[in-house]
Amino acid sequence: MAAVTPEPVTRLIEAFAQLPGIGPKTASRLTFYLLRRPAEQTEALAEALRDLKERIIFCQKCFNITEESPCRICQDEGRERGIVCVVEEPLDVLAIDRTGEYRGLYHVLHGAISPVEGIGPDELRINELMARLKEEPVQEVLLATNPNLEGEATAMYLARLIQPMGIRVTRLARGLPIGGDLEYADAVTLSRALEGRQEM
Amino acid sequence: MAAVTPEPVTRLIEAFAQLPGIGPKTASRLTFYLLRRPAEQTEALAEALRDLKERIIFCQKCFNITEESPCRICQDEGRERGIVCVVEEPLDVLAIDRTGEYRGLYHVLHGAISPVEGIGPDELRINELMARLKEEPVQEVLLATNPNLEGEATAMYLARLIQPMGIRVTRLARGLPIGGDLEYADAVTLSRALEGRQEM
Repeated sequence: MAAVTPEPVTRLIEAFAQLPGIGPKTASRLTFYLLRRPAEQTEALAEALRDLKERIIFCQKCFNITEESPCRICQDEGRERGIVCVVEEPLDVLAIDRTGEYRGLYHVLHGAISPVEGIGPDELRINELMARLKEEPVQEVLLATNPNLEGEATAMYLARLIQPMGIRVTRLARGLPIGGDLEYADAVTLSRALEGRQEM
Repeated sequence: MAAVTPEPVTRLIEAFAQLPGIGPKTASRLTFYLLRRPAEQTEALAEALRDLKERIIFCQKCFNITEESPCRICQDEGRERGIVCVVEEPLDVLAIDRTGEYRGLYHVLHGAISPVEGIGPDELRINELMARLKEEPVQEVLLATNPNLEGEATAMYLARLIQPMGIRVTRLARGLPIGGDLEYADAVTLSRALEGRQEM
């Protein structure tokens, strides 16, 4: 194959194949697709990639991704400053903000505690969160880590740190997903839905 | 979402989502993956993209992708020059060359005749193929267009043009794929396998 494939082609195939969920077949399909398209499309993708790393930084207050620090959310005077929602990843900020139901601030941990993967509290932005809670007028911390083993462990760890500070600690409700079918709900989700049952 | 997502992030998501088979969800997953990775990986991908369009040209003999024209295959003295294999896309050259069974030259049409998509013979490198056949000492043209409607139509069209020149025209065998299961073969493939049955 090396003999007939020009080096720039194999190099792009290899670079695409480094991305998660993209195997060698998809990588070569993408590369040959771009070869057939006008140069502008490839150029736009290359430039967007360069800009990503050159222009995106982490907000030094909430550690969300931003072009300026503090980020637009931290700067927004319209936001409730008494509540901080703690999430694992920047994508989670988007997901929660998109609901339009939450108008407080955020704090991005950049992961969850996972002894298996060797990720302890020091690898996350937990010290920075504690420093914020000491300085800022926060009355409630909403723990919105993922509803899985690592996310629950992280939430438990944080609750134990924060509750002694006299700050209210809440967690996103666990239960049946809307539009889901009770019959297909897994046992753990169903148990949580029973535990958390609400008055009608 | 626009309010909380920095522009370089949305721009990269949009650029990824332009690629075939990549929807908005995968595009944002790829973008946030790159945000977490060292800058070198993003840089390597951006540079590979730039190089693709800057360094890759089409061979002016066979129209395969190459860094120099004529390409390495057309220049290769070890290749049989009496046989030209006609394919639709550069990827097909790779697929055939990888078998190690073919040592002749190639000609890439860059598509197939498709009245539905408005692709006629003039949109393909057919005139260039005919010119080659007049100039070069070709004894056989192996039609390796895809075994589908467009590929078959293109093969028929080419056969009718080339046969009057006294050049042997062959087509890749159609039949049961190796490792396949007769039970699951579609009727058309099975019909072709019967038509093309060979002496043991």
